[in-house]
Amino acid sequence: MLALEILSAIEEIKQLMARRIRALDEKDWETYAACHADDHVSYALKGGKPGVGPQVITERTRRMVEGVTTVHMAHLPDITILSENEAEGRWVLEDRLWWKQGDEEHWYCGYGHYHDTYGKRGGRWLFTSRRLKRLRVEMSPGAVSPID
Amino acid sequence: MLALEILSAIEEIKQLMARRIRALDEKDWETYAACHADDHVSYALKGGKPGVGPQVITERTRRMVEGVTTVHMAHLPDITILSENEAEGRWVLEDRLWWKQGDEEHWYCGYGHYHDTYGKRGGRWLFTSRRLKRLRVEMSPGAVSPID
Amino acid sequence: MLALEILSAIEEIKQLMARRIRALDEKDWETYAACHADDHVSYALKGGKPGVGPQVITERTRRMVEGVTTVHMAHLPDITILSENEAEGRWVLEDRLWWKQGDEEHWYCGYGHYHDTYGKRGGRWLFTSRRLKRLRVEMSPGAVSPID
Repeated sequence: MLALEILSAIEEIKQLMARRIRALDEKDWETYAACHADDHVSYALKGGKPGVGPQVITERTRRMVEGVTTVHMAHLPDITILSENEAEGRWVLEDRLWWKQGDEEHWYCGYGHYHDTYGKRGGRWLFTSRRLKRLRVEMSPGAVSPID
Repeated sequence: MLALEILSAIEEIKQLMARRIRALDEKDWETYAACHADDHVSYALKGGKPGVGPQVITERTRRMVEGVTTVHMAHLPDITILSENEAEGRWVLEDRLWWKQGDEEHWYCGYGHYHDTYGKRGGRWLFTSRRLKRLRVEMSPGAVSPID
Repeated sequence: MLALEILSAIEEIKQLMARRIRALDEKDWETYAACHADDHVSYALKGGKPGVGPQVITERTRRMVEGVTTVHMAHLPDITILSENEAEGRWVLEDRLWWKQGDEEHWYCGYGHYHDTYGKRGGRWLFTSRRLKRLRVEMSPGAVSPID
Protein backbone atom coordinates (compact mmCIF):
# COMPACT_ATOMS: atom_id res chain seq x y z
CA MET A 1 0.00 0.00 0.00
CA LEU A 2 1.10 3.54 -0.73
CA ALA A 3 1.39 5.66 2.44
CA LEU A 4 -0.41 8.97 2.80
CA GLU A 5 2.89 10.87 2.40
CA ILE A 6 3.49 9.10 -0.94
CA LEU A 7 -0.02 9.72 -2.25
CA SER A 8 0.21 13.37 -1.27
CA ALA A 9 3.57 13.80 -3.03
CA ILE A 10 2.21 12.11 -6.18
CA GLU A 11 -0.80 14.46 -6.29
CA GLU A 12 1.41 17.52 -5.64
CA ILE A 13 3.64 16.51 -8.57
CA LYS A 14 0.63 15.99 -10.85
CA GLN A 15 -0.52 19.52 -9.95
CA LEU A 16 2.98 20.85 -10.61
CA MET A 17 2.88 19.36 -14.13
CA ALA A 18 -0.61 20.80 -14.69
CA ARG A 19 0.58 24.27 -13.62
CA ARG A 20 3.71 24.14 -15.79
CA ILE A 21 1.81 23.09 -18.89
CA ARG A 22 -1.00 25.60 -18.34
CA ALA A 23 1.58 28.36 -17.86
CA LEU A 24 3.35 27.28 -21.07
CA ASP A 25 0.17 27.36 -23.18
CA GLU A 26 -0.97 30.64 -21.59
CA LYS A 27 2.57 32.05 -22.00
CA ASP A 28 2.67 33.00 -18.32
CA TRP A 29 6.48 32.88 -18.10
CA GLU A 30 6.78 33.87 -14.46
CA THR A 31 4.65 30.92 -13.34
CA TYR A 32 6.46 28.67 -15.83
CA ALA A 33 9.90 29.57 -14.44
CA ALA A 34 8.70 29.12 -10.84
CA CYS A 35 7.86 25.44 -11.53
CA HIS A 36 11.57 24.62 -11.92
CA ALA A 37 14.34 24.21 -9.34
CA ASP A 38 17.40 26.45 -9.61
CA ASP A 39 19.46 23.48 -10.79
CA HIS A 40 16.84 22.13 -13.22
CA VAL A 41 18.27 20.54 -16.39
CA SER A 42 16.27 20.24 -19.65
CA TYR A 43 17.98 17.69 -21.86
CA ALA A 44 17.83 18.54 -25.55
CA LEU A 45 16.04 16.14 -27.86
CA LYS A 46 18.78 15.95 -30.42
CA GLY A 47 21.72 15.74 -28.06
CA GLY A 48 22.51 19.47 -28.03
CA LYS A 49 23.60 21.38 -24.96
CA PRO A 50 21.12 20.96 -22.09
CA GLY A 51 19.39 24.03 -20.66
CA VAL A 52 20.16 24.67 -16.99
CA GLY A 53 18.13 26.76 -14.56
CA PRO A 54 14.68 28.35 -14.74
CA GLN A 55 15.85 31.55 -16.46
CA VAL A 56 17.69 29.83 -19.29
CA ILE A 57 14.99 27.26 -20.10
CA THR A 58 12.16 29.77 -19.74
CA GLU A 59 13.86 32.23 -22.07
CA ARG A 60 14.64 29.48 -24.60
CA THR A 61 11.06 28.22 -24.51
CA ARG A 62 9.64 31.73 -24.71
CA ARG A 63 11.66 32.50 -27.81
CA MET A 64 10.61 29.25 -29.50
CA VAL A 65 6.86 29.63 -29.01
CA GLU A 66 6.44 33.42 -29.22
CA GLY A 67 3.76 33.93 -31.85
CA VAL A 68 2.93 30.22 -31.85
CA THR A 69 -0.37 28.88 -30.52
CA THR A 70 0.49 25.81 -28.43
CA VAL A 71 -1.55 23.10 -26.74
CA HIS A 72 0.26 20.53 -24.61
CA MET A 73 -1.54 17.50 -23.27
CA ALA A 74 0.13 15.12 -20.82
CA HIS A 75 -1.44 11.81 -19.89
CA LEU A 76 -0.96 8.68 -17.83
CA PRO A 77 1.35 9.93 -15.05
CA ASP A 78 3.49 7.17 -13.55
CA ILE A 79 5.21 8.84 -10.61
CA THR A 80 7.62 7.15 -8.19
CA ILE A 81 8.59 8.82 -4.93
CA LEU A 82 12.24 7.89 -4.38
CA SER A 83 12.79 9.63 -1.06
CA GLU A 84 11.33 12.42 1.05
CA ASN A 85 12.73 14.96 -1.43
CA GLU A 86 13.21 13.11 -4.72
CA ALA A 87 10.85 11.67 -7.28
CA GLU A 88 10.71 10.65 -10.93
CA GLY A 89 7.82 10.51 -13.36
CA ARG A 90 6.89 9.34 -16.80
CA TRP A 91 4.06 10.83 -18.87
CA VAL A 92 2.70 10.51 -22.39
CA LEU A 93 2.82 13.84 -24.26
CA GLU A 94 0.80 15.15 -27.19
CA ASP A 95 1.74 18.66 -28.30
CA ARG A 96 0.12 20.72 -31.04
CA LEU A 97 1.43 23.97 -32.50
CA TRP A 98 0.04 26.40 -35.06
CA TRP A 99 1.96 29.35 -36.50
CA LYS A 100 2.48 31.50 -39.58
CA GLN A 101 5.45 31.27 -41.98
CA GLY A 102 5.05 34.45 -43.97
CA ASP A 103 1.42 34.24 -45.03
CA GLU A 104 1.09 30.47 -44.65
CA GLU A 105 -0.57 28.74 -41.70
CA HIS A 106 1.47 25.76 -40.53
CA TRP A 107 1.05 23.13 -37.85
CA TYR A 108 3.05 20.62 -35.86
CA CYS A 109 1.71 17.62 -33.97
CA GLY A 110 4.02 15.52 -31.81
CA TYR A 111 3.75 12.52 -29.52
CA GLY A 112 6.26 11.18 -27.04
CA HIS A 113 7.22 10.20 -23.50
CA TYR A 114 8.45 12.60 -20.84
CA HIS A 115 10.89 11.31 -18.26
CA ASP A 116 11.10 13.90 -15.49
CA THR A 117 12.72 14.15 -12.11
CA TYR A 118 11.38 16.29 -9.27
CA GLY A 119 12.82 17.64 -6.03
CA LYS A 120 11.21 19.06 -2.89
CA ARG A 121 12.76 22.42 -2.12
CA GLY A 122 11.53 24.60 0.73
CA GLY A 123 8.42 22.43 1.09
CA ARG A 124 7.37 22.51 -2.58
CA TRP A 125 7.94 19.98 -5.37
CA LEU A 126 9.71 21.43 -8.42
CA PHE A 127 11.05 20.05 -11.68
CA THR A 128 14.75 19.11 -11.46
CA SER A 129 15.14 17.57 -14.93
CA ARG A 130 13.25 16.75 -18.09
CA ARG A 131 13.92 14.45 -21.03
CA LEU A 132 11.57 13.89 -23.96
CA LYS A 133 11.64 10.90 -26.29
CA ARG A 134 9.57 11.33 -29.44
CA LEU A 135 7.33 8.53 -30.72
CA ARG A 136 6.04 10.43 -33.76
CA VAL A 137 6.02 13.91 -35.26
CA GLU A 138 3.79 15.21 -38.05
CA MET A 139 3.92 18.61 -39.71
CA SER A 140 2.14 20.49 -42.46
CA PRO A 141 3.97 20.32 -45.81
CA GLY A 142 6.75 22.90 -45.92
CA ALA A 143 6.67 23.56 -42.18
CA VAL A 144 9.86 24.58 -40.39
CA SER A 145 9.34 23.41 -36.80
CA PRO A 146 9.57 26.25 -34.30
CA ILE A 147 10.70 23.85 -31.56
CA ASP A 148 13.85 21.71 -31.14
CA MET B 1 1.32 17.57 2.82
CA LEU B 2 -2.21 17.08 1.60
CA ALA B 3 -4.47 15.51 4.25
CA LEU B 4 -6.47 12.35 3.56
CA GLU B 5 -9.71 14.38 3.40
CA ILE B 6 -8.19 16.58 0.69
CA LEU B 7 -6.85 13.68 -1.38
CA SER B 8 -10.21 11.93 -1.16
CA ALA B 9 -12.10 15.03 -2.28
CA ILE B 10 -9.70 15.52 -5.22
CA GLU B 11 -10.20 11.92 -6.37
CA GLU B 12 -14.00 12.21 -5.97
CA ILE B 13 -13.99 15.34 -8.15
CA LYS B 14 -11.84 13.64 -10.81
CA GLN B 15 -14.38 10.79 -10.89
CA LEU B 16 -17.22 13.31 -11.14
CA MET B 17 -15.56 14.86 -14.23
CA ALA B 18 -15.03 11.38 -15.74
CA ARG B 19 -18.72 10.52 -15.20
CA ARG B 20 -19.95 13.80 -16.66
CA ILE B 21 -17.84 13.51 -19.78
CA ARG B 22 -18.63 9.82 -20.31
CA ALA B 23 -22.34 10.60 -19.93
CA LEU B 24 -22.00 13.44 -22.45
CA ASP B 25 -20.32 11.28 -25.09
CA GLU B 26 -22.72 8.37 -24.46
CA LYS B 27 -25.64 10.83 -24.47
CA ASP B 28 -26.85 9.51 -21.12
CA TRP B 29 -28.66 12.72 -20.18
CA GLU B 30 -30.00 11.54 -16.83
CA THR B 31 -26.47 10.81 -15.55
CA TYR B 32 -25.22 14.05 -17.12
CA ALA B 33 -27.84 16.17 -15.33
CA ALA B 34 -27.17 14.39 -12.01
CA CYS B 35 -23.53 15.58 -12.05
CA HIS B 36 -24.64 19.20 -11.56
CA ALA B 37 -25.89 21.04 -8.48
CA ASP B 38 -29.31 22.68 -8.63
CA ASP B 39 -27.66 26.09 -8.75
CA HIS B 40 -24.98 25.16 -11.30
CA VAL B 41 -24.06 27.93 -13.74
CA SER B 42 -22.51 27.25 -17.17
CA TYR B 43 -20.94 30.46 -18.45
CA ALA B 44 -21.26 30.92 -22.20
CA LEU B 45 -18.07 31.15 -24.25
CA LYS B 46 -19.07 34.22 -26.15
CA GLY B 47 -20.57 36.15 -23.25
CA GLY B 48 -24.17 35.08 -23.88
CA LYS B 49 -26.66 34.35 -21.13
CA PRO B 50 -25.33 31.68 -18.74
CA GLY B 51 -27.24 28.42 -18.33
CA VAL B 52 -28.50 27.80 -14.81
CA GLY B 53 -29.48 24.46 -13.29
CA PRO B 54 -29.12 20.86 -14.46
CA GLN B 55 -32.31 20.84 -16.55
CA VAL B 56 -31.49 23.95 -18.57
CA ILE B 57 -27.88 23.06 -19.32
CA THR B 58 -28.65 19.41 -20.03
CA GLU B 59 -31.42 20.34 -22.46
CA ARG B 60 -29.23 22.95 -24.16
CA THR B 61 -26.35 20.46 -24.50
CA ARG B 62 -28.65 17.68 -25.69
CA ARG B 63 -30.05 19.88 -28.44
CA MET B 64 -26.57 20.94 -29.60
CA VAL B 65 -25.08 17.45 -29.90
CA GLU B 66 -28.10 15.41 -30.98
CA GLY B 67 -26.98 13.59 -34.10
CA VAL B 68 -23.37 14.61 -33.49
CA THR B 69 -20.68 12.08 -32.55
CA THR B 70 -18.67 13.67 -29.75
CA VAL B 71 -15.46 12.73 -27.94
CA HIS B 72 -14.32 14.88 -25.03
CA MET B 73 -10.93 14.38 -23.43
CA ALA B 74 -9.94 16.26 -20.28
CA HIS B 75 -6.40 16.21 -18.97
CA LEU B 76 -4.12 17.53 -16.25
CA PRO B 77 -6.59 18.17 -13.42
CA ASP B 78 -5.41 20.85 -10.99
CA ILE B 79 -7.98 20.76 -8.21
CA THR B 80 -7.93 22.92 -5.08
CA ILE B 81 -10.14 22.10 -2.11
CA LEU B 82 -11.22 25.48 -0.71
CA SER B 83 -13.30 24.25 2.22
CA GLU B 84 -15.16 21.15 3.36
CA ASN B 85 -17.82 21.84 0.73
CA GLU B 86 -16.17 23.98 -1.94
CA ALA B 87 -13.51 23.33 -4.54
CA GLU B 88 -12.26 24.65 -7.86
CA GLY B 89 -10.47 22.94 -10.70
CA ARG B 90 -8.68 23.58 -13.95
CA TRP B 91 -8.37 21.05 -16.77
CA VAL B 92 -7.11 21.00 -20.33
CA LEU B 93 -9.86 20.06 -22.79
CA GLU B 94 -9.73 18.53 -26.26
CA ASP B 95 -13.12 17.97 -27.89
CA ARG B 96 -13.85 16.39 -31.25
CA LEU B 97 -17.17 16.39 -33.09
CA TRP B 98 -18.35 14.78 -36.32
CA TRP B 99 -21.71 15.43 -37.95
CA LYS B 100 -23.56 15.70 -41.25
CA GLN B 101 -24.61 18.95 -42.94
CA GLY B 102 -26.97 17.68 -45.58
CA ASP B 103 -24.90 14.97 -47.25
CA GLU B 104 -21.53 16.33 -46.17
CA GLU B 105 -19.47 14.96 -43.28
CA HIS B 106 -18.02 17.74 -41.15
CA TRP B 107 -15.78 17.88 -38.12
CA TYR B 108 -14.79 20.20 -35.30
CA CYS B 109 -11.72 19.94 -33.12
CA GLY B 110 -11.24 22.29 -30.17
CA TYR B 111 -8.71 22.85 -27.41
CA GLY B 112 -9.03 24.91 -24.26
CA HIS B 113 -8.99 25.25 -20.50
CA TYR B 114 -11.90 24.48 -18.21
CA HIS B 115 -12.25 26.45 -15.00
CA ASP B 116 -14.84 24.69 -12.84
CA THR B 117 -16.16 25.05 -9.34
CA TYR B 118 -17.59 22.18 -7.32
CA GLY B 119 -19.75 21.91 -4.21
CA LYS B 120 -20.44 19.05 -1.81
CA ARG B 121 -24.20 18.60 -1.48
CA GLY B 122 -25.72 15.80 0.56
CA GLY B 123 -22.34 14.07 0.79
CA ARG B 124 -21.54 14.12 -2.95
CA TRP B 125 -19.40 16.51 -5.00
CA LEU B 126 -21.27 18.17 -7.88
CA PHE B 127 -20.45 20.81 -10.48
CA THR B 128 -21.49 24.30 -9.38
CA SER B 129 -20.06 26.28 -12.30
CA ARG B 130 -18.12 25.89 -15.54
CA ARG B 131 -16.22 28.31 -17.76
CA LEU B 132 -14.30 27.35 -20.89
CA LYS B 133 -11.54 29.42 -22.48
CA ARG B 134 -10.57 28.30 -25.98
CA LEU B 135 -6.94 28.03 -27.05
CA ARG B 136 -7.66 26.88 -30.60
CA VAL B 137 -10.55 25.65 -32.78
CA GLU B 138 -10.29 23.90 -36.14
CA MET B 139 -13.15 22.89 -38.42
CA SER B 140 -13.64 21.24 -41.77
CA PRO B 141 -14.09 23.79 -44.64
CA GLY B 142 -17.70 24.95 -44.73
CA ALA B 143 -18.57 23.59 -41.29
CA VAL B 144 -21.20 25.35 -39.19
CA SER B 145 -20.23 24.49 -35.61
CA PRO B 146 -23.04 22.72 -33.76
CA ILE B 147 -21.75 24.05 -30.42
CA ASP B 148 -21.50 27.56 -28.98
CA MET C 1 -14.76 9.83 2.13
CA LEU C 2 -12.44 7.40 0.38
CA ALA C 3 -10.21 5.51 2.84
CA LEU C 4 -6.43 5.45 2.43
CA GLU C 5 -6.54 1.82 1.25
CA ILE C 6 -8.97 2.80 -1.53
CA LEU C 7 -6.96 5.84 -2.65
CA SER C 8 -3.80 3.75 -2.71
CA ALA C 9 -5.43 1.01 -4.80
CA ILE C 10 -6.79 3.61 -7.26
CA GLU C 11 -3.32 5.15 -7.72
CA GLU C 12 -1.70 1.71 -8.11
CA ILE C 13 -4.22 0.86 -10.85
CA LYS C 14 -3.59 4.17 -12.64
CA GLN C 15 0.13 3.35 -12.60
CA LEU C 16 -0.60 -0.15 -13.91
CA MET C 17 -2.48 1.35 -16.88
CA ALA C 18 0.37 3.81 -17.50
CA ARG C 19 2.92 0.96 -17.50
CA ARG C 20 0.84 -1.23 -19.82
CA ILE C 21 0.31 1.53 -22.35
CA ARG C 22 3.93 2.70 -22.23
CA ALA C 23 5.09 -0.90 -22.75
CA LEU C 24 2.68 -1.25 -25.69
CA ASP C 25 3.93 1.87 -27.46
CA GLU C 26 7.58 1.02 -26.70
CA LYS C 27 6.93 -2.59 -27.77
CA ASP C 28 8.38 -3.89 -24.51
CA TRP C 29 6.43 -7.15 -24.60
CA GLU C 30 7.80 -8.63 -21.39
CA THR C 31 6.57 -5.67 -19.35
CA TYR C 32 3.29 -5.68 -21.30
CA ALA C 33 2.62 -9.34 -20.53
CA ALA C 34 3.51 -8.85 -16.84
CA CYS C 35 0.68 -6.29 -16.45
CA HIS C 36 -1.93 -9.04 -16.93
CA ALA C 37 -3.16 -11.79 -14.59
CA ASP C 38 -2.84 -15.39 -15.72
CA ASP C 39 -6.61 -15.56 -16.24
CA HIS C 40 -6.91 -12.17 -17.98
CA VAL C 41 -9.56 -12.01 -20.73
CA SER C 42 -9.45 -9.49 -23.58
CA TYR C 43 -12.87 -9.30 -25.19
CA ALA C 44 -12.80 -8.81 -28.94
CA LEU C 45 -14.35 -5.67 -30.36
CA LYS C 46 -16.36 -7.42 -33.03
CA GLY C 47 -17.57 -10.35 -30.95
CA GLY C 48 -14.77 -12.73 -31.98
CA LYS C 49 -13.15 -15.24 -29.64
CA PRO C 50 -11.71 -13.50 -26.56
CA GLY C 51 -7.97 -13.71 -25.85
CA VAL C 52 -7.13 -15.42 -22.56
CA GLY C 53 -3.89 -15.12 -20.61
CA PRO C 54 -0.86 -12.84 -20.91
CA GLN C 55 0.95 -14.97 -23.51
CA VAL C 56 -1.96 -15.19 -25.93
CA ILE C 57 -2.94 -11.52 -25.79
CA THR C 58 0.65 -10.29 -25.86
CA GLU C 59 1.47 -12.41 -28.91
CA ARG C 60 -1.74 -11.29 -30.66
CA THR C 61 -1.01 -7.63 -29.93
CA ARG C 62 2.65 -7.97 -30.91
CA ARG C 63 1.69 -9.44 -34.29
CA MET C 64 -0.86 -6.69 -34.96
CA VAL C 65 1.42 -3.73 -34.23
CA GLU C 66 4.80 -5.06 -35.41
CA GLY C 67 6.07 -2.44 -37.84
CA VAL C 68 3.32 -0.01 -36.77
CA THR C 69 4.09 3.19 -34.84
CA THR C 70 1.46 3.42 -32.09
CA VAL C 71 0.51 6.10 -29.58
CA HIS C 72 -2.16 5.27 -27.00
CA MET C 73 -3.59 7.94 -24.74
CA ALA C 74 -5.98 7.07 -21.91
CA HIS C 75 -7.84 9.74 -20.01
CA LEU C 76 -10.33 10.35 -17.22
CA PRO C 77 -9.89 7.21 -15.09
CA ASP C 78 -13.00 6.32 -13.11
CA ILE C 79 -11.89 3.44 -10.89
CA THR C 80 -14.05 1.65 -8.34
CA ILE C 81 -12.51 -0.64 -5.73
CA LEU C 82 -15.01 -3.48 -5.29
CA SER C 83 -13.18 -5.46 -2.61
CA GLU C 84 -9.66 -5.90 -1.22
CA ASN C 85 -8.69 -7.76 -4.40
CA GLU C 86 -11.13 -6.65 -7.10
CA ALA C 87 -11.66 -3.41 -8.96
CA GLU C 88 -13.14 -2.07 -12.17
CA GLY C 89 -12.30 0.98 -14.21
CA ARG C 90 -13.46 3.07 -17.12
CA TRP C 91 -11.18 5.24 -19.25
CA VAL C 92 -11.46 7.30 -22.41
CA LEU C 93 -9.05 6.05 -25.10
CA GLU C 94 -7.49 7.79 -28.08
CA ASP C 95 -5.18 5.61 -30.18
CA ARG C 96 -3.15 6.64 -33.22
CA LEU C 97 -1.33 4.32 -35.59
CA TRP C 98 0.94 4.92 -38.58
CA TRP C 99 2.22 2.20 -40.93
CA LYS C 100 3.18 1.37 -44.50
CA GLN C 101 1.06 -0.56 -46.99
CA GLY C 102 3.57 -1.27 -49.73
CA ASP C 103 5.01 2.18 -50.36
CA GLU C 104 2.06 4.11 -48.96
CA GLU C 105 1.97 5.72 -45.52
CA HIS C 106 -1.35 5.12 -43.77
CA TRP C 107 -2.84 6.15 -40.48
CA TYR C 108 -5.60 5.16 -38.07
CA CYS C 109 -7.12 7.29 -35.34
CA GLY C 110 -9.62 5.80 -32.91
CA TYR C 111 -11.62 6.95 -29.89
CA GLY C 112 -13.52 4.89 -27.36
CA HIS C 113 -14.16 3.78 -23.82
CA TYR C 114 -12.24 1.06 -22.00
CA HIS C 115 -14.07 -0.99 -19.40
CA ASP C 116 -11.45 -2.95 -17.46
CA THR C 117 -11.41 -5.17 -14.41
CA TYR C 118 -8.40 -5.59 -12.15
CA GLY C 119 -7.36 -8.12 -9.50
CA LYS C 120 -4.75 -8.02 -6.74
CA ARG C 121 -2.52 -11.06 -7.05
CA GLY C 122 0.49 -11.60 -4.79
CA GLY C 123 0.25 -8.01 -3.58
CA ARG C 124 0.15 -6.37 -7.03
CA TRP C 125 -2.80 -5.12 -9.08
CA LEU C 126 -3.05 -6.69 -12.55
CA PHE C 127 -5.51 -6.53 -15.43
CA THR C 128 -8.10 -9.32 -15.30
CA SER C 129 -10.25 -8.24 -18.26
CA ARG C 130 -10.59 -5.57 -20.91
CA ARG C 131 -13.43 -4.48 -23.18
CA LEU C 132 -13.30 -1.58 -25.62
CA LYS C 133 -16.30 0.21 -27.06
CA ARG C 134 -15.50 2.46 -30.00
CA LEU C 135 -16.99 5.95 -30.30
CA ARG C 136 -15.32 6.82 -33.60
CA VAL C 137 -12.65 5.55 -35.98
CA GLU C 138 -10.95 7.46 -38.79
CA MET C 139 -8.46 6.12 -41.32
CA SER C 140 -6.50 7.36 -44.31
CA PRO C 141 -8.21 6.56 -47.64
CA GLY C 142 -7.41 3.00 -48.67
CA ALA C 143 -6.11 1.97 -45.25
CA VAL C 144 -6.49 -1.62 -44.08
CA SER C 145 -6.57 -1.36 -40.29
CA PRO C 146 -3.78 -3.40 -38.65
CA ILE C 147 -5.88 -3.84 -35.49
CA ASP C 148 -9.16 -5.65 -34.80
